[in-house]
Amino acid sequence: MAYSEKRMVAWGDCDPAGILYTPRVYDYCTEALDNFFRTVLGCDWVALLAGGNGQPMVHTECDYLKPMRPGLELTVTVTVTATGRSSVTYAIDGMAADGTAHFRARYVACFIDIESGAAVPIPERFRAILERELAGHGQ
Amino acid sequence: MAYSEKRMVAWGDCDPAGILYTPRVYDYCTEALDNFFRTVLGCDWVALLAGGNGQPMVHTECDYLKPMRPGLELTVTVTVTATGRSSVTYAIDGMAADGTAHFRARYVACFIDIESGAAVPIPERFRAILERELAGHGQ
Amino acid sequence: MAYSEKRMVAWGDCDPAGILYTPRVYDYCTEALDNFFRTVLGCDWVALLAGGNGQPMVHTECDYLKPMRPGLELTVTVTVTATGRSSVTYAIDGMAADGTAHFRARYVACFIDIESGAAVPIPERFRAILERELAGHGQ
Amino acid sequence: MAYSEKRMVAWGDCDPAGILYTPRVYDYCTEALDNFFRTVLGCDWVALLAGGNGQPMVHTECDYLKPMRPGLELTVTVTVTATGRSSVTYAIDGMAADGTAHFRARYVACFIDIESGAAVPIPERFRAILERELAGHGQ
Repeated sequence: MAYSEKRMVAWGDCDPAGILYTPRVYDYCTEALDNFFRTVLGCDWVALLAGGNGQPMVHTECDYLKPMRPGLELTVTVTVTATGRSSVTYAIDGMAADGTAHFRARYVACFIDIESGAAVPIPERFRAILERELAGHGQ
Repeated sequence: MAYSEKRMVAWGDCDPAGILYTPRVYDYCTEALDNFFRTVLGCDWVALLAGGNGQPMVHTECDYLKPMRPGLELTVTVTVTATGRSSVTYAIDGMAADGTAHFRARYVACFIDIESGAAVPIPERFRAILERELAGHGQ
Repeated sequence: MAYSEKRMVAWGDCDPAGILYTPRVYDYCTEALDNFFRTVLGCDWVALLAGGNGQPMVHTECDYLKPMRPGLELTVTVTVTATGRSSVTYAIDGMAADGTAHFRARYVACFIDIESGAAVPIPERFRAILERELAGHGQ
Repeated sequence: MAYSEKRMVAWGDCDPAGILYTPRVYDYCTEALDNFFRTVLGCDWVALLAGGNGQPMVHTECDYLKPMRPGLELTVTVTVTATGRSSVTYAIDGMAADGTAHFRARYVACFIDIESGAAVPIPERFRAILERELAGHGQ
């Protein structure tokens, strides 16, 4: 099963039109991805950084499928959809309790050496987990 | 000439790795697009909403080309790259003074009736301006 | 018992010094207060607004007692500490699992008529609940 | 003359009630204070950190004097109002072009050694400037 977490659309995340402000969906996705790291890979971004690595995004995108309003309860799901030498692609989806898909995002991350900024192979301790995730959920 | 504005990467927009936090680039783009509306179309989003229309995004994406750190001065440029019946596509780019491209985003907006949420044709007063922008800058 | 909720300090809420960015504590407090409204008063801010009322803050303040870093699990507690004709004062505290107090905020809200912006008496359906909260927890 | 900068209230900084979301005023103040550091003290927070010091806030507060809506042009002014051994107190005010005061904030910062977290005397190169500011503008 893919990683998922509950998230409620907050009043302050919405704009004067009463719907989720465009950039906020990326806050939801990025926090879910951080939690996926902590929970599934056993390493949050602080520990990753302390270990000399980073995982900056090289590309992010999102389809806004249905408007999101304050109080909406979402299930945000993180799925590994591809792995390369240094890169990992994630699908991050937001779905309401009734099954309505509200957003679908895609993040492409690249493992780097934090000193040089150069791309490095996905560390082995993460690769095994990411590929297991990919086998279960990849597309 | 396309619309552009200056923006400095703020300390608080950066994360503990010292670089721009992934979602914040969308704050920069969305604010630049709001300012483009105000300046070039002569109508900010408050006035658009008051007139019964909205322009929610149906898709946004960004390539992160070079890390951005606190104090970096960016020129953020908004270009119209396509128009449809209801939709407009914008390229939003962030460039340093030395010409380094730091990010390149793409936003697809859709004009809607704010009551029904249904797509509507681009209002005529905007279409003329958007197509003039497109002629000058489209790709 | 006062209202409380769990909240983890997110990576993206912290700044390049690695600690919670100064303004973010107010996001934590304001979201906790919104949840207090929804849970304890049975009315979120959308419903309050739809009913013709608002509850803007006239004053907020916070003491930062101990640095907060990514991954820190906080319990955020909302307590009613005073009621006036139109105003309500809340204490909002953030405490770690080991009992360390990390922040203590105070919010003064004022009930208003949303059309005129004028202060109005606390609606009766809220006053009874707020005063019961105050009796239990007030200072 | 005190340091000041222009700032426009952004659409995305406002909530579904159409006014500035409570926490956002602290983003305005904290960014103005960072810019004050860069401009008046000749040292941004990155350089301060690189030099082994930090200046975390120990207390912040704000009076919300008049509602702020999208498009409002503010002049945000930073004034030094007190200095102690390690601490500096700033008043940060937001005023419209017509002279209307929209917010008045107060920040108390404390200079620290970044390694130990202990309070340190205000570095001499800053004290001279801060006291000159204080002499000109203090209250």
